[in-house]
Amino acid sequence: MSWGVNRVGTWMPGWVTGVVGGLVRGARRMLPDSRHPARVVVAGFAVTILIGTVLLMLPVASANGQLTSWVTALFTATSAVCVTGLIVVDTPAYWSTFGELVVLGLIQVGGLGIMTLASLLGMVVTRRMRLRTQRSAQTETKSLVLGEVRRVVVGVIVLSLIMEIVTAAILSLRLVNAYGYSWAHGTYLGVFHAVSAFNNAGFALYPDSLVRYATDGWICLPIAVAFVLGGLGFPVLFELTRHLRRVQRRWSLHARITLAGYGLIALVGVVAITGLEWNNPATLGAMDTDGRLLTGLFHGLTPRTAGFNTLDVGEMQPATLLVTDVLMFIGGGSAGTAGGIKVTTFALLAFVILAEARGEPQVHIAGRRLPTEVVRQALTVVLVAVGMVFTATLVLLVLTRFGLDAVLFESVSAFGTVGLSTGITGELPAVGHLVLVALMFTGRIGPITMASALALRERGRRYDLPEERPIVG
Amino acid sequence: MSWGVNRVGTWMPGWVTGVVGGLVRGARRMLPDSRHPARVVVAGFAVTILIGTVLLMLPVASANGQLTSWVTALFTATSAVCVTGLIVVDTPAYWSTFGELVVLGLIQVGGLGIMTLASLLGMVVTRRMRLRTQRSAQTETKSLVLGEVRRVVVGVIVLSLIMEIVTAAILSLRLVNAYGYSWAHGTYLGVFHAVSAFNNAGFALYPDSLVRYATDGWICLPIAVAFVLGGLGFPVLFELTRHLRRVQRRWSLHARITLAGYGLIALVGVVAITGLEWNNPATLGAMDTDGRLLTGLFHGLTPRTAGFNTLDVGEMQPATLLVTDVLMFIGGGSAGTAGGIKVTTFALLAFVILAEARGEPQVHIAGRRLPTEVVRQALTVVLVAVGMVFTATLVLLVLTRFGLDAVLFESVSAFGTVGLSTGITGELPAVGHLVLVALMFTGRIGPITMASALALRERGRRYDLPEERPIVG
Ligand SMILES: [K+]
Ligand SMILES: [K+]
Repeated sequence: MSWGVNRVGTWMPGWVTGVVGGLVRGARRMLPDSRHPARVVVAGFAVTILIGTVLLMLPVASANGQLTSWVTALFTATSAVCVTGLIVVDTPAYWSTFGELVVLGLIQVGGLGIMTLASLLGMVVTRRMRLRTQRSAQTETKSLVLGEVRRVVVGVIVLSLIMEIVTAAILSLRLVNAYGYSWAHGTYLGVFHAVSAFNNAGFALYPDSLVRYATDGWICLPIAVAFVLGGLGFPVLFELTRHLRRVQRRWSLHARITLAGYGLIALVGVVAITGLEWNNPATLGAMDTDGRLLTGLFHGLTPRTAGFNTLDVGEMQPATLLVTDVLMFIGGGSAGTAGGIKVTTFALLAFVILAEARGEPQVHIAGRRLPTEVVRQALTVVLVAVGMVFTATLVLLVLTRFGLDAVLFESVSAFGTVGLSTGITGELPAVGHLVLVALMFTGRIGPITMASALALRERGRRYDLPEERPIVG
Repeated sequence: MSWGVNRVGTWMPGWVTGVVGGLVRGARRMLPDSRHPARVVVAGFAVTILIGTVLLMLPVASANGQLTSWVTALFTATSAVCVTGLIVVDTPAYWSTFGELVVLGLIQVGGLGIMTLASLLGMVVTRRMRLRTQRSAQTETKSLVLGEVRRVVVGVIVLSLIMEIVTAAILSLRLVNAYGYSWAHGTYLGVFHAVSAFNNAGFALYPDSLVRYATDGWICLPIAVAFVLGGLGFPVLFELTRHLRRVQRRWSLHARITLAGYGLIALVGVVAITGLEWNNPATLGAMDTDGRLLTGLFHGLTPRTAGFNTLDVGEMQPATLLVTDVLMFIGGGSAGTAGGIKVTTFALLAFVILAEARGEPQVHIAGRRLPTEVVRQALTVVLVAVGMVFTATLVLLVLTRFGLDAVLFESVSAFGTVGLSTGITGELPAVGHLVLVALMFTGRIGPITMASALALRERGRRYDLPEERPIVG
């Protein structure tokens, strides 16, 4: 297995592997042997969203027992499966408990699905690259074998469950002890927000998201830890567990870039957003120093791409919104629950500039050389992402009377599957909601499927045409 | 000469070559033999701006005979030399005729300077690339010879003069015949706006730029033709003259990309902006169909990067501003009077995506293969440009209470040396003016000098490190 998931199955309880057998066989049948495994991801997400839409349209799903319009149901199902968190109706007020459980289920399926499929796609890509460059000493086949797929599926499920259970336990205890919830209600809230946090879904069961808990570190910090870990991605989490168990010493290039890049961008984000909002009386300015630091930390991290808010985003400075736009666009780690173009994609472009500034003919990162085509793939992913956000922003500007601040923020939030909003989501016309649905869907699976499709495709036309250079700049 | 300026000197009158002898020798001494010819460009522009600043500060330069503040003088001088057209004081009201002539002189020096230096840099880059890839059959030296430099300088001056004289003649005739100006005043206005147009400077001698001539094709069209031709760049203009004189049959790759790219983007721009403003009662909506078409045409072209306006930009739709942002950022052709990242730079990135979509290992354009390093250089230029515009936008957002629509527009306009504004330029604090000065300066010479510096630098570290691939997307 290409990024080292060799022994994940060995420390899982037997019943877990049994439960997921069907899923594994289904995934394996389609994924490794297909010439276009990315299509499986597209189809899987589309079908899940359609099932969710139908369930949410049922009268039993709404609090008032009425049929829900297909646009609202489709928007909510897409937002849940794509773990975005944008909402057109208030989650606790509009949906029944059944509706909330459907949302919770969609979040869980979406989060597990994206981690599993993106991890497998990443392995397939790395495998083929190795075979092509013939650097692999072992006899590897082109396709993944059943055992590898099972280990990834089991690993993803077990890691998710552990994280969610621990987070849910802390949240439930706090909600019961400090806020007087019954054990049943507190546990329900704890589980819902833990699942929503680890999967970077951003759905909350309060009309103000988590604003009421802004200064409560026992709520904010466990949630932040959960969404940061989920957002690092399964390959990195798996390597972390192997380092903790001391079965691995060397860090993969992917883990190094993700951890350093995620940390650096998080640091910049926290400092910038805390600084920019420090004296804003409508946000941090109203809190004491401890509250400002905790809330600033949370709002430096939540754009990557958790989507919970403990401040009113609509009251933020335009500069804060712009910084948040960038954080949301970059997003988190690959093959995790975070969205965006991903930390590695962004970092690769930074390393290209660094190589150019140093005048080096090839891109080197931490003693490793980057394959030339990866730079082009990263560039393509970023430019297509920019094009999609630009197009959606333009359409929403035409459809509404909102300014660029709010509309760009909404588009980036949807594409990055973040879920933060300045408050305009519900006020958009139905066409605007469908634009956001398209953005959430492509934002969730686009970068992953595009990058792997580009990396896996056949390369033809090896002969050289005469070279000619236009003037750049 | 690398893009084929071989015979430009032969059809120039002898006295022209005599007049520019000193300039040629000065340019040649520094440019071709230096390891960092880009520094000459930086120093040349900085010195010209400083001289312009001092001249504009003099009491004789202002209409009221008072000393002008250094920030206002520096801003105006930078805007003129960098052929931008952003203004902090109304040009005809604030400056005396001497002040206007200083502005005119700075525009002319800036326009000639950028065309000459960028053309020479482009030749040096292409020359060294050919030597390195050893595709050149002729014995070429690394440096440009005196004759080549002289031909470029003479060619730029003669082409500029011809264009400016023709444009000035048409404008003067129209102003005298249709608007009752005296011959002296009409000729002065004609010359000023012709020079401002061909050099894409955007300075006008009316407080409303050219709004009063919005529906007069005899004013708008000659100006548009002048700024489009100037914006194509000297290498392309020179090839055009050689095709017109039938001494050349094959188009260079640079000319093909520039002409097709400029045309395509112009078409998209004209259609988008005309369509978006068609029913806006504050802009096109107030005109008849002919007026809407002419004004829409003008406002589809002026962002690339002329900067005259015949509509109140502050009244445009947010969507129109966003489209204009993109047009301004792309700009015009290389080694011309237009700014932006340039059509070729933008087109290269588009061709990279196309090559990725087709699964081709190399980037092909019109039967030519693109050197791999050019893609990286184009990417670097674009990302640094995005970074500069982003940083300036952020600073201006913090400094002011304006929204992202207006501030982003202002930053892109300054960086692309466009000169369009929603009207906030004069209202910015002095620090904001200095931010714009820095943007105009780097926007004018940054892409050119960066691209050539990257292309000309020595490449070291040829040995290979082990290859490793992070997950993209
Ligand atoms: K989210
Ligand atoms: K201009």
